[in-house]
Amino acid sequence: MLTVNAYAATSATEPLSPMTIERRDLGPHDVLIEIAYTGICHSDIHHVRGEWSPGAYPVVPGHEIAGTVREIGPEVTEHAVGDRAGVGCMVDSCRRCVNCRKGQEQFCVDGNTLTYGSVGKDGRLTQGGYSTHIVVPEDFVLKIPEGIGLDAAAPLMCAGITTYSPLRRWSVGPGTQAAVVGLGGLGHMAVKLAHAMGAEVSVLSQSLRKQEDGLRLGADHYYATSDPETFGKLSGSFDFMLNTVSAATDVDTLLSLLGVDGALVNVGAPPEPVSLDVFSLLSNRRVLAGSLIGGIRETQEMLDFCAARGLGAEVEVIPASGINDAYERISASDVRYRFVIDIATLK
Amino acid sequence: MLTVNAYAATSATEPLSPMTIERRDLGPHDVLIEIAYTGICHSDIHHVRGEWSPGAYPVVPGHEIAGTVREIGPEVTEHAVGDRAGVGCMVDSCRRCVNCRKGQEQFCVDGNTLTYGSVGKDGRLTQGGYSTHIVVPEDFVLKIPEGIGLDAAAPLMCAGITTYSPLRRWSVGPGTQAAVVGLGGLGHMAVKLAHAMGAEVSVLSQSLRKQEDGLRLGADHYYATSDPETFGKLSGSFDFMLNTVSAATDVDTLLSLLGVDGALVNVGAPPEPVSLDVFSLLSNRRVLAGSLIGGIRETQEMLDFCAARGLGAEVEVIPASGINDAYERISASDVRYRFVIDIATLK
Repeated sequence: MLTVNAYAATSATEPLSPMTIERRDLGPHDVLIEIAYTGICHSDIHHVRGEWSPGAYPVVPGHEIAGTVREIGPEVTEHAVGDRAGVGCMVDSCRRCVNCRKGQEQFCVDGNTLTYGSVGKDGRLTQGGYSTHIVVPEDFVLKIPEGIGLDAAAPLMCAGITTYSPLRRWSVGPGTQAAVVGLGGLGHMAVKLAHAMGAEVSVLSQSLRKQEDGLRLGADHYYATSDPETFGKLSGSFDFMLNTVSAATDVDTLLSLLGVDGALVNVGAPPEPVSLDVFSLLSNRRVLAGSLIGGIRETQEMLDFCAARGLGAEVEVIPASGINDAYERISASDVRYRFVIDIATLK
Repeated sequence: MLTVNAYAATSATEPLSPMTIERRDLGPHDVLIEIAYTGICHSDIHHVRGEWSPGAYPVVPGHEIAGTVREIGPEVTEHAVGDRAGVGCMVDSCRRCVNCRKGQEQFCVDGNTLTYGSVGKDGRLTQGGYSTHIVVPEDFVLKIPEGIGLDAAAPLMCAGITTYSPLRRWSVGPGTQAAVVGLGGLGHMAVKLAHAMGAEVSVLSQSLRKQEDGLRLGADHYYATSDPETFGKLSGSFDFMLNTVSAATDVDTLLSLLGVDGALVNVGAPPEPVSLDVFSLLSNRRVLAGSLIGGIRETQEMLDFCAARGLGAEVEVIPASGINDAYERISASDVRYRFVIDIATLK
């Protein structure tokens, strides 16, 4: 066992606080990573506050992890000590079901093991990346290529793959009129990636407050959804829209912006059901779809894609002591565009 | 002008009754068709009863038309007197917009001209196929191949293309686990077509009442949605589902039957909005989509596909005097599987 420093939530209502946790001894296929940076994802907040489902405590959040391999189990072949390594939302899966065999471990039929708050194969609650070290089976460790700073790479492990995967699945590329709804942690990565894939990119944001950022990140156009003219002007004009907003949105209004065969893909989900007029789908035979992170293979592909193009997240690096403040600011949409914890401040 | 016998609705509430209407003189590109059979589509009933939008009266319904070319305009090149011909839901479109140019006239940006109840380019209300003759621009006249009886061909013009188009778009074929929800006019064609395309076909119907028919039409499996075990047993098992039911359905429950990348495509739409839990789409990154008839080119492809495989609709041929009774029976789901009017009884 390795005792390591961490920042943990002890209940749904109290602030996160320092704590030590234990990491298991390395099994034959395990990798020990010394964490350098961990991104703060909005779902960390949902989880610790029990907003999706009642959680078990204490829990150490964090599934946007970047660091360095410090030790490997005797049968590890894909990673070496000193490698730059990342861990995302999953640390294990059954590896045998139809979805795991297709590299879609996020949809493991038997249920995968999430990086934190899941019961691992050893029966213990998994603990995430707000900690100095983590032990992960080698198949769930990603290689972070040279050329991306570990701070800018950390958010790719969730925000990056969550947006990359639907862009690829729906063949966004040259000639695609693509819209990104919401310019937050997910949205800003979607803009960068869609632009890098060659699409003509529009941002649909509540206001024009972040317009300058959006254009700098790669958007060709920027529209305010609070402007009543926006929806009339853009009616039927997009091939693909990525909705990164978790709050309830007017789905029919968004769908009205899609042309024939256009797809509106949701990567967030509001807690309450939404209302949908099915005629919105018949018209222009539109598609409403969802997407959920991505498989391990595709996550590596995304990291390689980003490294080849010099892409990373826009980050605001904070000390571990700033986690609770960061949670408040994220809840108020006051972050450009991802908080990343400097894990050295935990040591 | 040609004065022809027809059956018309004079208001939203009165029974349909005999009437004469006038067909325009043939323009250079027009075709005069002597109608042999016209199918009764559920949307005829919605239309005459003003259930979708207030209608103009009198109106002659009917957009599943099969007959014989009797006269052609001087510049018609694609059709000849004596040809077996069909007309579906549309009789014109702008022909210039991005969608028309792609053969998707059903999504004409300028608005297409529907076979009945639309204002045609001559400013007059279009009148449909419950009549002895119709005049249609040649580009909207389909060729009905030898090998399909005109009675069995008539419903292909709407029920056939409405189900064929989404099956093709979503690449249903060998290896596809396909489900058809509802075994009515649309559903029975979907079963025949999906089976002919090589899919393994399941029917999901309220009860097992039509099971024998379903299996005879080509289904491999038949399930009752009223059986609470059905949904647990089939969870995550389909690649493609075609929802032919226009009444409100529990979308989340249907979506739960789709595996990774599975698509639930609606070809009917309930009048009220439906409730959707977006998590149903994130999980297994599912697709919810719509489809609306099909373009002219694809309709011809569907007719050729059906002729090559000896496929037609299962019809119950009725005299024109039976139209009002048929409307009652359709509203009570008491038809196997399409009423077709023998237009000879109108002469």
